[in-house]
Amino acid sequence: MADTQETTTQLKDLGEFGLIERLTKDIKLQHSSSIKGVGDDAAVLDYSGKQIVVTTDLLVEGIHFDLIYTPLKHLGYKAVVVNLSDVYAMNAVPKQITVSMAISGKFSMEAVELLYQGIKKACNFYNIDLIGGDTTSSVTGLTISITAIGEVEKGKAVYRNTAKPGNLICVSGDLGAAYAGLLLLKREKEVFLVNPNSQPDMSTYDYVLERQLKPEARRDIFEALKNAGITPTAMIDISDGLSSEILHICKQSGCGAKINEGSLPIDVQTINVAEELNLDPTLLAMNGGEDYELLFTVNPNDAEKLQGIAGISVIGEILAKEKEVRLFGKGEGSTIIKAQGWNAYPEKE
Amino acid sequence: MADTQETTTQLKDLGEFGLIERLTKDIKLQHSSSIKGVGDDAAVLDYSGKQIVVTTDLLVEGIHFDLIYTPLKHLGYKAVVVNLSDVYAMNAVPKQITVSMAISGKFSMEAVELLYQGIKKACNFYNIDLIGGDTTSSVTGLTISITAIGEVEKGKAVYRNTAKPGNLICVSGDLGAAYAGLLLLKREKEVFLVNPNSQPDMSTYDYVLERQLKPEARRDIFEALKNAGITPTAMIDISDGLSSEILHICKQSGCGAKINEGSLPIDVQTINVAEELNLDPTLLAMNGGEDYELLFTVNPNDAEKLQGIAGISVIGEILAKEKEVRLFGKGEGSTIIKAQGWNAYPEKE
Repeated sequence: MADTQETTTQLKDLGEFGLIERLTKDIKLQHSSSIKGVGDDAAVLDYSGKQIVVTTDLLVEGIHFDLIYTPLKHLGYKAVVVNLSDVYAMNAVPKQITVSMAISGKFSMEAVELLYQGIKKACNFYNIDLIGGDTTSSVTGLTISITAIGEVEKGKAVYRNTAKPGNLICVSGDLGAAYAGLLLLKREKEVFLVNPNSQPDMSTYDYVLERQLKPEARRDIFEALKNAGITPTAMIDISDGLSSEILHICKQSGCGAKINEGSLPIDVQTINVAEELNLDPTLLAMNGGEDYELLFTVNPNDAEKLQGIAGISVIGEILAKEKEVRLFGKGEGSTIIKAQGWNAYPEKE
Repeated sequence: MADTQETTTQLKDLGEFGLIERLTKDIKLQHSSSIKGVGDDAAVLDYSGKQIVVTTDLLVEGIHFDLIYTPLKHLGYKAVVVNLSDVYAMNAVPKQITVSMAISGKFSMEAVELLYQGIKKACNFYNIDLIGGDTTSSVTGLTISITAIGEVEKGKAVYRNTAKPGNLICVSGDLGAAYAGLLLLKREKEVFLVNPNSQPDMSTYDYVLERQLKPEARRDIFEALKNAGITPTAMIDISDGLSSEILHICKQSGCGAKINEGSLPIDVQTINVAEELNLDPTLLAMNGGEDYELLFTVNPNDAEKLQGIAGISVIGEILAKEKEVRLFGKGEGSTIIKAQGWNAYPEKE
């Protein structure tokens, strides 16, 4: 490659967000129809009447999934869901997706059909039209690229950069379960590689496994908030872990935050896995990722309305910028919540 | 992979279009906003007022490009252009793109920046907003996934399935040059691998090399047709070769066609390369691919208007279905134009 220069920066040193920032810093939107470009869960376009939301995700074998323990149908379902989650996190309704795939020769037609069955199942469940895509070969492995498009009433998109001090920080569902499921699957893979005849009993861990293998997007929470008349002041979906996402909101909103460890919603199965693996459940909840829950902030005046919605936890409060972003333990003291590294090269994978 | 069954169909046996047909045959569009889904260059959505066009392409290292002879900046430019070409082929104006990339550890930041420079150069030239994307790692190599979105006046999108017997078949520019350029580059790569100090003189082949490495989308032809008051009856861009594309139009329109070999526009450099490599220039023009020219059909009443536009060749005529799709040679006789195989696993790559 004649293009590379002698002094180079390694991607792993730069980090994902550093790379994105560097690549996109001089991009200027040219069209009045481009309301929001790079820098949020999805882009917002204005084509008279409704505004349009576009988001895209790339899933790469060996990086985002391991086919040793990932059923292809689940993989297809999940590939759609992770995109829809981004659309809901914009306060928008997903309507269409495009699906592109690069597939190596090791896959049979039937294997690809299983993948597509999962994709179609998700489309049916979430009422999505699959409107296009591209299919090609790859030298090795499988890559799936999905773009989701949704609609939102003009001016109703909810961004990351609009949280205000005093806002309540809320999260849907529970945290850390998908990562707990991943840890279990990786452990069983090790066992399997040593003894291919092993038949692990995973029945007591059905919830965390499902959270890893077949997550759902929180359409229900999006709808419940709408029905309750609550518009979040800021919102993001949790794909890289709570720590990473709250930092996105705080950095972009120019705020600090207080997260209460005791308020973090963690399922009992997640706690059991953590204990079994000698890990702190809080660590899983803060940094596990792939939860696809909604993290959002609301005006404190909406606190009463919030109580009428099941499955939402208030986990902290947005503070002034000087207060930093801190996790307050169950006992005394607090720790600064740190940015994650290059998440696209995660150690956990 | 526990998902694969015992009797399997190999992708290479099924072919790309067979695979797509099989995967998408039971997809039903659910929204009134989904005007056109799978089956054309791009999808058309109706969100009141303007209609929206969405298209996506995946470029995979080792399949679509070889970094030994592809400058990264050119690659970025081309990755955008191939998508814009699809949007113009819908008679629409591209407005936004999303860019996703999976990048292996062998790439430096500077290398990725070069790629992005090319992407941004194309965005500037074609007046496109880059509105989002996803960046992740890959186990090996580079994959680029781009989605382009454009707008078109309601009802003005031009599809593949609307050609009528008697329509003139037209093509912009010339054909086979990009493939001629690829053949040259592959030959020089072989020489280079044997003797890394070789310095090939490629100056007499500048045109075919540029057609391969830095193609353009035919915005000019789109605009010229519009200014001349010509709306094509059907249109497609030539990415897989003229043979493949005319068959798409004829199959979807339920028509036959007559292509006149003597009318095929072929540049003198393409002819020179063909002679040098002992190949038939017509073969390059029919099956080379990556031309990114517009192939379209027009009502014969528009023939006079067409003559006022430079760079368009009338190469044949749409016929009734019974007439098949045939290439009429410069001498006597004709041959049936055959479908290409699995283009995503091209032998030429």
